[in-house]
Amino acid sequence: MSKLLSDLVEALRCLPGVGGKSAQRMAFHLLERDRERGLRLARVLDEAMRQIGNCSRCRNFSETPVCALCSSSGRDRQVLCVVESPTDLAAIEQATGYRGQYFVLLGRLSPLDGLGPRELGLDLLVERLGEGEIEEMIIATNPTVEGEATAHYLAQLARAAGVKPTRLAHGVPLGGELEYVDRGTLAHAFGSRHAAD
Amino acid sequence: MSKLLSDLVEALRCLPGVGGKSAQRMAFHLLERDRERGLRLARVLDEAMRQIGNCSRCRNFSETPVCALCSSSGRDRQVLCVVESPTDLAAIEQATGYRGQYFVLLGRLSPLDGLGPRELGLDLLVERLGEGEIEEMIIATNPTVEGEATAHYLAQLARAAGVKPTRLAHGVPLGGELEYVDRGTLAHAFGSRHAAD
Ligand SMILES: [Zn+2]
Ligand SMILES: [Zn+2]
Repeated sequence: MSKLLSDLVEALRCLPGVGGKSAQRMAFHLLERDRERGLRLARVLDEAMRQIGNCSRCRNFSETPVCALCSSSGRDRQVLCVVESPTDLAAIEQATGYRGQYFVLLGRLSPLDGLGPRELGLDLLVERLGEGEIEEMIIATNPTVEGEATAHYLAQLARAAGVKPTRLAHGVPLGGELEYVDRGTLAHAFGSRHAAD
Repeated sequence: MSKLLSDLVEALRCLPGVGGKSAQRMAFHLLERDRERGLRLARVLDEAMRQIGNCSRCRNFSETPVCALCSSSGRDRQVLCVVESPTDLAAIEQATGYRGQYFVLLGRLSPLDGLGPRELGLDLLVERLGEGEIEEMIIATNPTVEGEATAHYLAQLARAAGVKPTRLAHGVPLGGELEYVDRGTLAHAFGSRHAAD
């Protein structure tokens, strides 16, 4: 196998779920049958890695300073849903009929990993709660130990700002990750959210 | 989801076996955790799609005019193995102890698809057989109807040039594709090759 070809196989292994055998199949497939789309993937991938940053308001992925969702006039401004990651935000958008705002932590409280309130942008969140528009803050962290601790901390922030914190209903399996929950379960849990304890 | 992000998800679907859900998981994974490797993949993919051509001697993928295998002094020059695709060549290299030369058809005889002797580079193959070094030509086309017809045609070319044609032993499942055969079976079939009929 030529140097460039084995470099390509190796590089494809950065994709989650892709081992040596499927990386090789992908490389040969593109070279034999689909060079145009391979070139397009290279171009889009390069642009995405360089240009996608985070929205200055909600911290979700965005190539513009403020994302489309935050600048939309069609979204409810009284409800804010807090999630750990852009993946979780996408899962909620795709599974539920939620029409409010979001805030993305880009992590969860984890002192051992150096992730504290500053890294999660909680100063930005507090500022946002202080604007006075938000009435309910839906805490949609993952049901893991660190996610629960983060939720507890977030509920306190909300109450301090006079905002009602709510949690997703149980139904999301304990120890699981939101992005792997089936749409029906996630939609149900989202609809049955309750007051945070 | 931002325009650039949904473009990326769409572009990732050019990879075989990657549907909408895994494409989205891949895009988020790279953006959240692995931008450096994402950029490297974009660069290597672009180079590979542009620079990898075919060896002028064996037609395997190569970014140099003559590939490393054809220019190696460590390979037996008396045996030539003919395969349909670079994937099949890689499968044989990885599964067997074969140390001879190769010729890659980049297809199989298929008149309805406009694939005839010229498209498979058979003029180049005849020239190669005429050089007088090759004593045995191993025909390792796929055991499909078109692969068998191609094998039959190749065996006649070999005999006309005074070269002994051989076939892989049965053991490769009929109707299957070489690249999906397990290494053990492929190695066994390769070792038990017999005179072509
Ligand atoms: Zn935003
Ligand atoms: Zn070559």
